[in-house]
Amino acid sequence: MVEVLVLHGPNLNLLGGREPKVYGKTTLNHINQLLLADAQELGAKLEIVQSNHEGVLIDAIHKAIGTKQGILINPAGLTHTSVALRDAIAGAEIPTVEVHLSNIYRREEFRHHSFTAGVVVGQISGLGVDSYRLGLRGLVNYLKNQ
Amino acid sequence: MVEVLVLHGPNLNLLGGREPKVYGKTTLNHINQLLLADAQELGAKLEIVQSNHEGVLIDAIHKAIGTKQGILINPAGLTHTSVALRDAIAGAEIPTVEVHLSNIYRREEFRHHSFTAGVVVGQISGLGVDSYRLGLRGLVNYLKNQ
Amino acid sequence: MVEVLVLHGPNLNLLGGREPKVYGKTTLNHINQLLLADAQELGAKLEIVQSNHEGVLIDAIHKAIGTKQGILINPAGLTHTSVALRDAIAGAEIPTVEVHLSNIYRREEFRHHSFTAGVVVGQISGLGVDSYRLGLRGLVNYLKNQ
Amino acid sequence: MVEVLVLHGPNLNLLGGREPKVYGKTTLNHINQLLLADAQELGAKLEIVQSNHEGVLIDAIHKAIGTKQGILINPAGLTHTSVALRDAIAGAEIPTVEVHLSNIYRREEFRHHSFTAGVVVGQISGLGVDSYRLGLRGLVNYLKNQ
Amino acid sequence: MVEVLVLHGPNLNLLGGREPKVYGKTTLNHINQLLLADAQELGAKLEIVQSNHEGVLIDAIHKAIGTKQGILINPAGLTHTSVALRDAIAGAEIPTVEVHLSNIYRREEFRHHSFTAGVVVGQISGLGVDSYRLGLRGLVNYLKNQ
Amino acid sequence: MVEVLVLHGPNLNLLGGREPKVYGKTTLNHINQLLLADAQELGAKLEIVQSNHEGVLIDAIHKAIGTKQGILINPAGLTHTSVALRDAIAGAEIPTVEVHLSNIYRREEFRHHSFTAGVVVGQISGLGVDSYRLGLRGLVNYLKNQ
Amino acid sequence: MVEVLVLHGPNLNLLGGREPKVYGKTTLNHINQLLLADAQELGAKLEIVQSNHEGVLIDAIHKAIGTKQGILINPAGLTHTSVALRDAIAGAEIPTVEVHLSNIYRREEFRHHSFTAGVVVGQISGLGVDSYRLGLRGLVNYLKNQ
Amino acid sequence: MVEVLVLHGPNLNLLGGREPKVYGKTTLNHINQLLLADAQELGAKLEIVQSNHEGVLIDAIHKAIGTKQGILINPAGLTHTSVALRDAIAGAEIPTVEVHLSNIYRREEFRHHSFTAGVVVGQISGLGVDSYRLGLRGLVNYLKNQ
Amino acid sequence: MVEVLVLHGPNLNLLGGREPKVYGKTTLNHINQLLLADAQELGAKLEIVQSNHEGVLIDAIHKAIGTKQGILINPAGLTHTSVALRDAIAGAEIPTVEVHLSNIYRREEFRHHSFTAGVVVGQISGLGVDSYRLGLRGLVNYLKNQ
Amino acid sequence: MVEVLVLHGPNLNLLGGREPKVYGKTTLNHINQLLLADAQELGAKLEIVQSNHEGVLIDAIHKAIGTKQGILINPAGLTHTSVALRDAIAGAEIPTVEVHLSNIYRREEFRHHSFTAGVVVGQISGLGVDSYRLGLRGLVNYLKNQ
Amino acid sequence: MVEVLVLHGPNLNLLGGREPKVYGKTTLNHINQLLLADAQELGAKLEIVQSNHEGVLIDAIHKAIGTKQGILINPAGLTHTSVALRDAIAGAEIPTVEVHLSNIYRREEFRHHSFTAGVVVGQISGLGVDSYRLGLRGLVNYLKNQ
Amino acid sequence: MVEVLVLHGPNLNLLGGREPKVYGKTTLNHINQLLLADAQELGAKLEIVQSNHEGVLIDAIHKAIGTKQGILINPAGLTHTSVALRDAIAGAEIPTVEVHLSNIYRREEFRHHSFTAGVVVGQISGLGVDSYRLGLRGLVNYLKNQ
Repeated sequence: MVEVLVLHGPNLNLLGGREPKVYGKTTLNHINQLLLADAQELGAKLEIVQSNHEGVLIDAIHKAIGTKQGILINPAGLTHTSVALRDAIAGAEIPTVEVHLSNIYRREEFRHHSFTAGVVVGQISGLGVDSYRLGLRGLVNYLKNQ
Repeated sequence: MVEVLVLHGPNLNLLGGREPKVYGKTTLNHINQLLLADAQELGAKLEIVQSNHEGVLIDAIHKAIGTKQGILINPAGLTHTSVALRDAIAGAEIPTVEVHLSNIYRREEFRHHSFTAGVVVGQISGLGVDSYRLGLRGLVNYLKNQ
Repeated sequence: MVEVLVLHGPNLNLLGGREPKVYGKTTLNHINQLLLADAQELGAKLEIVQSNHEGVLIDAIHKAIGTKQGILINPAGLTHTSVALRDAIAGAEIPTVEVHLSNIYRREEFRHHSFTAGVVVGQISGLGVDSYRLGLRGLVNYLKNQ
Repeated sequence: MVEVLVLHGPNLNLLGGREPKVYGKTTLNHINQLLLADAQELGAKLEIVQSNHEGVLIDAIHKAIGTKQGILINPAGLTHTSVALRDAIAGAEIPTVEVHLSNIYRREEFRHHSFTAGVVVGQISGLGVDSYRLGLRGLVNYLKNQ
Repeated sequence: MVEVLVLHGPNLNLLGGREPKVYGKTTLNHINQLLLADAQELGAKLEIVQSNHEGVLIDAIHKAIGTKQGILINPAGLTHTSVALRDAIAGAEIPTVEVHLSNIYRREEFRHHSFTAGVVVGQISGLGVDSYRLGLRGLVNYLKNQ
Repeated sequence: MVEVLVLHGPNLNLLGGREPKVYGKTTLNHINQLLLADAQELGAKLEIVQSNHEGVLIDAIHKAIGTKQGILINPAGLTHTSVALRDAIAGAEIPTVEVHLSNIYRREEFRHHSFTAGVVVGQISGLGVDSYRLGLRGLVNYLKNQ
Repeated sequence: MVEVLVLHGPNLNLLGGREPKVYGKTTLNHINQLLLADAQELGAKLEIVQSNHEGVLIDAIHKAIGTKQGILINPAGLTHTSVALRDAIAGAEIPTVEVHLSNIYRREEFRHHSFTAGVVVGQISGLGVDSYRLGLRGLVNYLKNQ
Repeated sequence: MVEVLVLHGPNLNLLGGREPKVYGKTTLNHINQLLLADAQELGAKLEIVQSNHEGVLIDAIHKAIGTKQGILINPAGLTHTSVALRDAIAGAEIPTVEVHLSNIYRREEFRHHSFTAGVVVGQISGLGVDSYRLGLRGLVNYLKNQ
Repeated sequence: MVEVLVLHGPNLNLLGGREPKVYGKTTLNHINQLLLADAQELGAKLEIVQSNHEGVLIDAIHKAIGTKQGILINPAGLTHTSVALRDAIAGAEIPTVEVHLSNIYRREEFRHHSFTAGVVVGQISGLGVDSYRLGLRGLVNYLKNQ
Repeated sequence: MVEVLVLHGPNLNLLGGREPKVYGKTTLNHINQLLLADAQELGAKLEIVQSNHEGVLIDAIHKAIGTKQGILINPAGLTHTSVALRDAIAGAEIPTVEVHLSNIYRREEFRHHSFTAGVVVGQISGLGVDSYRLGLRGLVNYLKNQ
Repeated sequence: MVEVLVLHGPNLNLLGGREPKVYGKTTLNHINQLLLADAQELGAKLEIVQSNHEGVLIDAIHKAIGTKQGILINPAGLTHTSVALRDAIAGAEIPTVEVHLSNIYRREEFRHHSFTAGVVVGQISGLGVDSYRLGLRGLVNYLKNQ
Repeated sequence: MVEVLVLHGPNLNLLGGREPKVYGKTTLNHINQLLLADAQELGAKLEIVQSNHEGVLIDAIHKAIGTKQGILINPAGLTHTSVALRDAIAGAEIPTVEVHLSNIYRREEFRHHSFTAGVVVGQISGLGVDSYRLGLRGLVNYLKNQ
């Protein structure tokens, strides 16, 4: 059984109600249900954390050391600004997959750069809920092949 | 009665004692008293939050969804670095006015760029306490004209 | 009685008819009426000049030396290109407030930089006619507190 | 009958005598004669203005509102520096074609950028007097097809 | 049955033998076998093209208009340099998913920018063969949900 | 009789069906018919080539040496990326006019730079089919005046 | 007795176990023991705080006003991204020394810029634990010489 | 007798009263008296023009064609922004010397670049009134040696 | 006997006739004859390919895997734009020397950057035909010393 | 006994008399006395060289190969401009610590970049004479721990 | 009697023979004779040093402290690269005038920036030998007016 | 007999002992022996100078005027920083070939730019000792063909 930490960054708790043109109409709760169902099929166990606090996300990554084999993260707005989050992922040395609901390359230019992309295994963006679901699948495959 | 959330960003709790050349001699408490008095005159009700934590500010914005009609924010140092705060304002879809005590264009170059400016209704800077007071007045007018 | 020069830069004479999505539907004449009424209330006397000529605006600023206590200016397109206008404001040493009808940070990138912002007391943008009205109020307060 | 304003920017009155390597040997007067002849053939009526004053050019554009259907402009040196001229063209909402005698992409780098190009229908450069003549033809066709 | 064009860009025919540290040890033929098997499971029919010629890739995209519902593309080195390929994808108006075997954000800086990313539905990078397989899955889901 | 090579770059074969907002509704075939008719009137003979292959366009330019007096080219996406095409035009030493259907200065920033503009006689953009037609006219005039 | 606040930024709690090539093998606890011993020798009293939360670090700096004479800080990842932390140090007006275990100029380019360096007394980097120890010594000397 | 046009750009009419730290205490009138005296000694005849209008300065340069042998210009704020003024100097083909009272390289960065410097014979800055006086002397020498 | 692939990029077939100021008067055929003679002396066997098609050059590099020990390439205009060509050289893992007839550092700035330079053994530019001849000699020496 | 070369770069011989606001009032001689005393305590032997000649500093570094175990250097103005000095340090392969009296991040922007920082063990700046003294201590510790 | 140090930077000893298009035909010796004659007239005594060594120039500046009242310097190529020379001028606190024979703003872009310009009284360029002669005159005037 | 000056820049005296991964194992003495042998075969006479002093290298270039027909130079670290060295080469008007042992395009980005490349005949890099040997051969050929 593979243990995976799922991290949702700032503002993702708003999903489903706000700015549907950008982020779609699915709620975060629904995404989590889909991921939990997928996890069961893939032989993975999930712990899911959402926070608007950079520090809480970093603490969660630290806590995952020694207890989780992989991390699935949507760093949201912190993607483009947080060296501390990048350092947490690099320091934890846990294979991580970064996902984005929207295609960040079709949005403002400051969203084209990701600090976390330089330390993760891979990145998926633009496929809506499937960014998460395929990210989980890719992460679990990656962990099984290590 | 218009309900307005007033947000003071990091370090504004130090106002009045430190760096008076840059920020003036008024305390944050005094600013809040002036805003409350103005609010009464303008027919607005204020909830006031100050925090040095980005996450706390974002949480406050989220909580304002459905309960406040407008936000008056001085994002302070986060103005120039926080995409997460920008996303919170954009995601909340509550009309927001951004204020700065000092003229950010007369300070270091990194203060000339504002991430939040791209998602707010308007911005006022350089007028000291009046940046706040005129910002509140402008916000309330804006809400009444919507 | 505070004497204030109100300066409207290039193209502002078109207000109310053209590009209402960007600039709103109010005419410049109407803005001036509102400012004159506000001025009366605030104990200020206004002289109002609109010109599409950089040189005329600079001449007006020079003429204000010794006769006006403050300047309220919307430099319009010259905001982003005129060092001469900036030098006029700096050289006149009359406290000045810069206003913009639209939020210049939500428009083209070349509008994000203001040459005049570096020499004015403060700047207000994005609040439509209220940018002017609050700017006048802020300027008069500033002059009274000096 | 299509009414067209032809605008010649700063220094174009020098044409024919100075810097013939860059601008050719034709005088502005000769260009105007050719344009007037072409206009007759194309069913257009021209008003022609040359000025070294940015403000005069802007005033002319404003005056064209409601009286002209199209503008043919060679903004010359103002091409690269005048946001106010750009705003005038955008604000007038009159279809405009921008022309340059020389190929601005074979000259100094600061001439490669055009503020006006972002608000005109099209741009022609490098074809000498034909830049003007084809520009007029293209403008009149454009107006007839609207 | 969903018809999908799979496009492999320049040098991908070398896969499996060269630079295994960057691209892994799997041959392109093996990737294609895996994709064909996945396609069967997903109810998709694949046409697979590899070329080192930008023009051949563009021609293939054009030919897909009216015959394919989706495109799965690894533009390889052309990702970073080809506006023509970008225009082909945009012009064909066929939903496209972009994939990369390696994490392009951990390689040279010129690989961080993708011209095609601005016109595709989504992008997957860094997951090796799984970038392709998850890309196909995501594309087919996307097409079924349209 | 002036012999002119007309070159259409990548994706222009899609004209008329795709992205009509950007490129209009006219087909390439129709443009060619118009150009052939114009050519007859102007005393020119056209050879027309369209290709999505940079190399084919370069080969065509080489073949034109000694047989054509002018080239009319819409390099499309290659405008912004191909030094080889630029070198071909410069090396052939055949007067060339560059045309674009859309105003490239109103599109993405990467389209504002043209490698070919530095070696052509002139450039026309934004006038739709008229960019081609006026370009041909300008080119023939240019050749006659040499 | 000089009172000094020692601040360890995000991820420094991981020291000793993770990425030893970059950060060495010493634990944070061991660093703290060494600093406490040094402090005794230098006649200083330390309060030590580690946090992954920017806000907690800022709060600690505020609390130090009036109670501490100096601050020794390793802002870690926040060095490069936090204007709020910079403002806290500047606002507290407590002499501060910034330290880094690794030589930040031999790492990724985004680590070469420090927001905090502009408001501290001095900076030490690259000397491992000695960066801290010498930093403390330098800070205490500085405070004694004031 | 050498005929020289002396041009003073925007805001120089304020000299002597405003911002003495930057520009010194001498009035423009006094500078002109000194120049007229120097001219007599050097065998030169001066025409002196000051204007805050770019267009007036350009017109004056045009009028100088055929009547003046040299131009001494302090373009002031237009130095850094006016391509039209540069084009006027280049087009007039009259040897020109550019002067600045203050050392423009010790002021804001936007003052370090001069559009006019690229078309003048030489430039003198930082020597106060002597910038003008030595500029006149250098210009007259230059004209005599041609 | 060392087997070497000699690759001539786009437009080099024009050598000897066009732009002699930049590229000299020698034809490509003559260069090839000189190289073949040199090869005989150096104990090398050459296969020579010229193409204006990026894809043909890449295909040739791929075909060289396992059959050639070295590559001598003048990528011409593709030097500055082709990541695909760079990837082909890197992927083929055949020692390669890059040559340019002219000194690319004395030409336009966009020619100063070479994508291929980052993956070749060495580069020679500016020595005309000798760039090729010395490049071949250097390559053969390099291969013999491996 | 550890042998250390102490290098003082250009202009440091002026210390103590000139620009005391930037560099303090201590003379270089006094700094050297303090360092010699510290060295004795630390079990180190110093050779001290000051030169305004880049070449002399490089020669000194070369001479240190095989005779010194460490280098303490204040490259002064050469910090920001000398690749040759950087290469000397890298080529000598002697552990080096870089020191600066003033905080180079609070001075002109061109002083924020250090060529030498990329090849030294560590850097200390802003602590006045203590930058040297702590640098020596850190260097000797580093050498003892190797 | 005013004592002035005249410094000629690298390669100026070549004057008169080489590159006359850029630097004119006068030898350095002739310039020095003219300066000595001017000095006599101006009541100044000159010491003249030319060196191709940065360090020799810096040493000469240091030696001037306490013995010279002014420095006239043509830093030549060091103008654009030497922070050490800039620091020497700033540290010596002797009023300095910088001169250039050619107009550095009409040459390569890397010559447009001067490190020394930021610390000198004024700068003269483009007037050939007169740059020196007027520079000396301006310097002596400046010293007399102090 | 062709007389050639061979110049070795800073730190090249260290060759053979230090950083063999970057520069190889050959000593400078051995390179010189190889060059002297080659020179004999090519009919050239060499004078060889190595210095770590920019000024010494410039002096040597000046001395070569009138006595040498060509210069072979490896400017080492000065390549990227010395305008004075560039000016010396340009001023001497002696054909010069620039060589580098390593491929400067595979090293740090600041090594990709060469000030000297803009004034030399050609450049060879990356071929180790052969960079020198082929450079000498190319230079002698060049001189014979002049």
